[in-house]
Amino acid sequence: MKLSKDNFSEWYNTVLEEMDIIDLRYPVKGMPVYKGWGFGIMKRAFGILEDLLEKHAHEPMLFPLLIPEDNLRKEGEHIKGFEEQVLWASALNPEEGERKLAIRPTSETAIHPMLAYWIRTHADLPFKMHQTVCVYRYETKATKPLIRGREVFWNEAHTAHAGKEDCERQIKEAVEIYKEFFKSLCIPFKLVQRPEHDKFAGADYSIAFDMLMPDGKALQGGTVHNLGENFAKVYGLTYDDEKGEKKFLHQTSYGISMRALALLIAIHGDDKGLVLPPFVAPIQVIVIPVFFGEKEPVIAECRKVLQELKDKGVRVKIDARDMRPGEKYYYWEGRGVPFRVEIGPKDIEKKQVVLVNRLGEKTVVPQEEVSDRILSSFVHLTEKLRGRAEAEQKTRTKTAKDLEEAKALMEKGGLVELGWCESEECAEKIAEATGAELRGTIWGGKEHKEKCAVCGKDGKLAIVAKAY
Amino acid sequence: MKLSKDNFSEWYNTVLEEMDIIDLRYPVKGMPVYKGWGFGIMKRAFGILEDLLEKHAHEPMLFPLLIPEDNLRKEGEHIKGFEEQVLWASALNPEEGERKLAIRPTSETAIHPMLAYWIRTHADLPFKMHQTVCVYRYETKATKPLIRGREVFWNEAHTAHAGKEDCERQIKEAVEIYKEFFKSLCIPFKLVQRPEHDKFAGADYSIAFDMLMPDGKALQGGTVHNLGENFAKVYGLTYDDEKGEKKFLHQTSYGISMRALALLIAIHGDDKGLVLPPFVAPIQVIVIPVFFGEKEPVIAECRKVLQELKDKGVRVKIDARDMRPGEKYYYWEGRGVPFRVEIGPKDIEKKQVVLVNRLGEKTVVPQEEVSDRILSSFVHLTEKLRGRAEAEQKTRTKTAKDLEEAKALMEKGGLVELGWCESEECAEKIAEATGAELRGTIWGGKEHKEKCAVCGKDGKLAIVAKAY
Repeated sequence: MKLSKDNFSEWYNTVLEEMDIIDLRYPVKGMPVYKGWGFGIMKRAFGILEDLLEKHAHEPMLFPLLIPEDNLRKEGEHIKGFEEQVLWASALNPEEGERKLAIRPTSETAIHPMLAYWIRTHADLPFKMHQTVCVYRYETKATKPLIRGREVFWNEAHTAHAGKEDCERQIKEAVEIYKEFFKSLCIPFKLVQRPEHDKFAGADYSIAFDMLMPDGKALQGGTVHNLGENFAKVYGLTYDDEKGEKKFLHQTSYGISMRALALLIAIHGDDKGLVLPPFVAPIQVIVIPVFFGEKEPVIAECRKVLQELKDKGVRVKIDARDMRPGEKYYYWEGRGVPFRVEIGPKDIEKKQVVLVNRLGEKTVVPQEEVSDRILSSFVHLTEKLRGRAEAEQKTRTKTAKDLEEAKALMEKGGLVELGWCESEECAEKIAEATGAELRGTIWGGKEHKEKCAVCGKDGKLAIVAKAY
Repeated sequence: MKLSKDNFSEWYNTVLEEMDIIDLRYPVKGMPVYKGWGFGIMKRAFGILEDLLEKHAHEPMLFPLLIPEDNLRKEGEHIKGFEEQVLWASALNPEEGERKLAIRPTSETAIHPMLAYWIRTHADLPFKMHQTVCVYRYETKATKPLIRGREVFWNEAHTAHAGKEDCERQIKEAVEIYKEFFKSLCIPFKLVQRPEHDKFAGADYSIAFDMLMPDGKALQGGTVHNLGENFAKVYGLTYDDEKGEKKFLHQTSYGISMRALALLIAIHGDDKGLVLPPFVAPIQVIVIPVFFGEKEPVIAECRKVLQELKDKGVRVKIDARDMRPGEKYYYWEGRGVPFRVEIGPKDIEKKQVVLVNRLGEKTVVPQEEVSDRILSSFVHLTEKLRGRAEAEQKTRTKTAKDLEEAKALMEKGGLVELGWCESEECAEKIAEATGAELRGTIWGGKEHKEKCAVCGKDGKLAIVAKAY
């Protein structure tokens, strides 16, 4: 089937299916199977995230899937956020006195009660953990693969702090970690503080990474929540400060889901299929023997290059299938493999290989330089992909002076910036006028003051977009 | 608290709690929390396993947690194996027509039905995948941390093959992968084929890795199942062979659970606490500044060594806490960190460091050789731990001529080898006489023929042990 990214929705579904990302035919709604290539990419992306978190002293932990009902219900605002969507677990013959058990919709209510055992004094703080698990919500809205489902693969981090200041510092650290993560995936973003009426249930405030999808809609790719003392008060989580006084913990939580995979696919892909940044590709280099006559010497040469690359830690494979080289190029381009090495009899004669990157840039490389050249090409391609994606986002982000201009700009899709006073009333008027959502105010860096495009009062620069 | 491994059960529980392995106070029975140090070890161990599987062409995948009831029930023998223990998931307001959903007790019934979409001809075979997930069983027996629980962290592999022969080859490959895995964890084992009455529900036969625990009891550390055509017939899984004829798939599955962590702890630990093989230790080297006066020059020297080790890929940390060096030694020995580097003013003067491994072997190393020496010491310590564990297993494995001798040997615990004719009747008599379990016949290598210790008929050498 001929792919065309101009029809993004069709392109996306076709790529998911044909490139072995997921299989939607699993017989439970909103729960696809992650196939080898798709999970291979996701595993590497989340590996990068986990390494970053652990470098910043987040301990890897694993909390149980099931949460007793009374713990889940304790934070009243929190449970209201998704009560209807909770899945419950039960045994055929439960033991006497067994409490009702929820399948985790998110893990605050599993983790926080345990902190009462672990944190006594300021010396036990900060507390920082992360886990990579699935969370479950019985979504009744239409599900969309890797974007909205009933089983959400994600990494969630949870922290606790002595005092508001250290908690704010942690929010900044979390944002920096996520920035670094998305940078390594070559995915540009806008950082916004979500409107009061759209923050995480139980949080003081929520910061979100909003990404621009090819169809002009915004997708939330990650969130960072300042929970303040809200959960600590509910679960009675205190510590003794330096004067020996009992204080409530300040807490944060933040997460990035399988949407990172959706973004990787959507943002970098082209009419040939996937385009993978080298550091997340399950196979970084595919070596393709080009035969005209005797096979063995060509294969032997390919093996030599393979071994050399392996020794440098490159994820590399030979495709020695009985197919024409052109078919193999097509196959591996579709899967987004960043580099292809072609070796034929002529190349062997000239002691060279042909190196082609996924963007079609072709160079002839002396054989003895092949591994060094590929390693430096990883950086080059990564920067190129990042630059391309950033340029695209920049082109499709416009600033509007007033509602009318915002409406006109919104018709073309993309992100529209305009002033907003932070009232829910004006947010509704903006949404009504533009047919889009007010995503929040721009977060970080200098203050972005701006008069409200609706009421003219003092406000901040905000982002409006149609959203997933 | 003073640890003594002579009282193994108390030692084990104390180590789990004090060394931040798990916390049993989570309010759901049989579902402890994995804490940072414990999950850090497990993550690394399973990382080694995943790398081995992927090196042998198993694709990483992820199947949903929930399995429709009709799929689960299709293989009649299989479901009988754990029907009472299945946990079921339900929403508050399920959508119309939603089938009853089981929380996966194991994944055959999730995975196999999908193979009908993926496998058409012999060219699609072999199929090999693995996933690291938790499985759930509502155990009614007493649970034991990391050994028997209601939430079991594990890695499971599933394969499909054209023909019996390739399936048998896969069984051997699986056994080799697991051997390699346990070798890297320095954990010795006995390979046995489980008796017919004790095989995996739905399998043709099951091979198990049995390990000897310090209390003299056996623990099953991993299993490999030949499923034959049993599941393929139930789910209608066929492929076209080279002649275009429809044939049923031959299948295998194999898994290793969090018991690998229990074994690491139990087999290597000593009266000081954990002893970790270098390749699974979250921290491989702890650098401890020893002050007598000025702190800054000592810390600076420690940082230099830290950076040098980091550059070589070593997981290393400085402990600069305000405590006496002796307290720090005690702390990190308890957690099993394989190497300690001590640096004091005298060492700086002499351009040397003091290197101490977890077994107490102390050497003075010239500063410029420190990273090379540590890397080679990793191999030395690994071999030492492996040798020690193997010697222990060998000492505690005895051969009995008859039931009487088996009984006498069994009183001291350990593994007892004796002849068995493979009948369930004689197995029961052996169990009765020895107060232990017949674990199965020795698998692999040369044939171990032996007359049955009960009936005298032709049989094989089998292993008897008390078991977890």
